[in-house]
Amino acid sequence: MSLLAVGTVAIDSIETPLGKAERVVGGAATYIAWAASYFTDQIRILSIIGEDFPQPELELLKSKGVDTEGIHLIKGGKSFFWSGRYSTDMNSRDTLETQLNVLADFAPDLPSAYKNSKYLMLGNLTPAVQMSVLNQMESRPDIIAMDTMNFWMDSAMGELLEVIKRVDILTINDEEARQLSGQQSLAKAARDILKMGPKYLIIKKGEHGALLFDNDQVFFAPALPLYDVFDPTGAGDTFAGGMMGYLSQKGELSFSNLKTAIIYGSAMASFCVEEFGINKLKELTDEEIKIRLKKFIDLVHFEL
Amino acid sequence: MSLLAVGTVAIDSIETPLGKAERVVGGAATYIAWAASYFTDQIRILSIIGEDFPQPELELLKSKGVDTEGIHLIKGGKSFFWSGRYSTDMNSRDTLETQLNVLADFAPDLPSAYKNSKYLMLGNLTPAVQMSVLNQMESRPDIIAMDTMNFWMDSAMGELLEVIKRVDILTINDEEARQLSGQQSLAKAARDILKMGPKYLIIKKGEHGALLFDNDQVFFAPALPLYDVFDPTGAGDTFAGGMMGYLSQKGELSFSNLKTAIIYGSAMASFCVEEFGINKLKELTDEEIKIRLKKFIDLVHFEL
Repeated sequence: MSLLAVGTVAIDSIETPLGKAERVVGGAATYIAWAASYFTDQIRILSIIGEDFPQPELELLKSKGVDTEGIHLIKGGKSFFWSGRYSTDMNSRDTLETQLNVLADFAPDLPSAYKNSKYLMLGNLTPAVQMSVLNQMESRPDIIAMDTMNFWMDSAMGELLEVIKRVDILTINDEEARQLSGQQSLAKAARDILKMGPKYLIIKKGEHGALLFDNDQVFFAPALPLYDVFDPTGAGDTFAGGMMGYLSQKGELSFSNLKTAIIYGSAMASFCVEEFGINKLKELTDEEIKIRLKKFIDLVHFEL
Repeated sequence: MSLLAVGTVAIDSIETPLGKAERVVGGAATYIAWAASYFTDQIRILSIIGEDFPQPELELLKSKGVDTEGIHLIKGGKSFFWSGRYSTDMNSRDTLETQLNVLADFAPDLPSAYKNSKYLMLGNLTPAVQMSVLNQMESRPDIIAMDTMNFWMDSAMGELLEVIKRVDILTINDEEARQLSGQQSLAKAARDILKMGPKYLIIKKGEHGALLFDNDQVFFAPALPLYDVFDPTGAGDTFAGGMMGYLSQKGELSFSNLKTAIIYGSAMASFCVEEFGINKLKELTDEEIKIRLKKFIDLVHFEL
C-alpha cells in the first residue's frame, strides 16, 4: 500500500490578487503528501531540504503517518525557494525569483525501505532525477505516475521521453500537451502522447477541469466553481496527491478507478486553492472531503 | 409547443486554420432553428433578409417544418453580412467585415400567429429589438431565453438590463459574465447576474463547456473533445437551439430539465463545429444525435 512521493519540499513566497504569503512551506512532494495523507497512511517522501526548512512542518507530516526519512537535510544549505505573483484572473503567474539552492545537487539516494514502494508519484523534477528513482526501485511499482513541465520539454526532451516511456500515468497541462505532441486538438495530442508509452494521460486545465484519456476512452472531471480562489499554488500537485492516495487505497489501476481517482484529486485541489499554501490541506476532516466529493456528483449528474 | 426564434438570418464568409467558406448561410436564428428542428416541428423565425439571400435555403428550412413567414424580405436590399478569421487555436477571431445592410432598419413586426408562441429564444440582437418582440407578445411565453454580447454591454447597457429583467434564461460567455457583473469569479458573477432578473444563467465557455446556475445550484456541461474543429461559427446559437428545442418538447422549465437541455445544446454544438457553417446541422439523423448524447454520459459518469 506504500506510496512514494518524489519532488521538491520547498519554501515559497506567493502574491495573488487576494493577498500575500511570505516564506511558507511548499513544494510538489509536500502538496502530494498532504493530499494523499487523507487516503493512505503509508506515504514516503523523497526530497532534499536545507537548514532553513522549519522542522515543525516535518513533525506535522510525521504525525500524519508520512515517512520523512528520505527528506535529505543538507547542513548549512538553503531549501529550494520560489516566489511568484499571479495575474488578476489567476490564470497566469510571473516567477519573481527561483533559488535552486540544495536542489542544484539533488542526486537522490533511496532509503532501502523505499525501494519496494508499490505506488510511485514522480513530481515535477529534472527527468534525470526521475529516471534515477525509477532505476533504484527493486521491483517495478504497481502504479507509476509522473508530472512534468514545459521547461523540461525545452531543455531535456530526450531524457524526458525516456521517463515518459516507463510510466503508467502522465499528468501535464493543456499547453504542455500541445507542446509535447505538436497538436492543437487535445484529442489528437492525447492520441499521440499515449503512443509515447503511458497507458493513461491526464490533461489538467486548471479552472476548466481535467481530461483523462486512454486509447479508447475519455473522461472529464470538472473543477468546482468557487467564490474565491486565494492561491492556485500547488493545485496540480494536490490533484496528483489526491489521485494517488485514492489509487493506493484501491490498489488496482483501471480506467474506472482512475476516473474516481481524478475526482478525488479535483476535490482535494478545490480545497487547496481556498487558502494560501498548504494551510487548508492541513485541517480537513473526512466529513468535509465526503461533502466535497458529493458536490462533484451534483455538478455533472444529469438524466437523458 | 411553438418556439419562436428571433435573430439574424445572414451571409457569412469564414476563414479558419482548416479552410475557408465564402458567402455561406449563417445568422443566429438560422443556427437556432436548425438545431431545434430535430426536437420540435413548430418553429417560427423572426428576422430580416435581402434579395441576395438564397431562396433554396429558406425552402429547406420550411421542409423541416420551420415557419418562415416572419423572415421579412426587403426588395433590393442586401442581407446582413459578416466575415471573420479564426486564430490558430480557434479561441479568438478577428472580424474582417460587418455589413449591417437590411438589419440596420430592422423594426420587427410580429405576424399575428407568432404572438402566442409558448417558447421564445431571443438571439443576439440590439436590446431594443429584443424588447420590441417581448412587447408584441400577446401572452407571456412559458419560457423566454436570451443571448447577448459584450457589444451591447458597451453601447446599450441600460436597455440591455431592461430585457435581462424580463427573461427566464440568460446565455452569455465567461468574459461577458465577468463584464456584466464586474466579478472575476464566475460563481460570484452568477450570484450577481441572477439578481438582475433571470431565474437561470448559462455561462458558455466554448471548448471548456458551459455552466448553469440558479440561486441554489450549479451544473456543468462539458464540451466533447474533438479531433478536429472546422468552424466554431454558430456554436453558441446551435447550443441555444438544441436547448430550446429540448425544452419545447419537455414543456416545463426546471433545473433538472434545463440540465438535460444544455446537454442537448452541447451535443448539437459539437456537431455544428465539425463542418463549416450549418452544413453538418442539415444532415443529422436522430440516431447520430442519440449516440452523441450517450457520449456525454460516458464523458462525465463516475462512481464514488
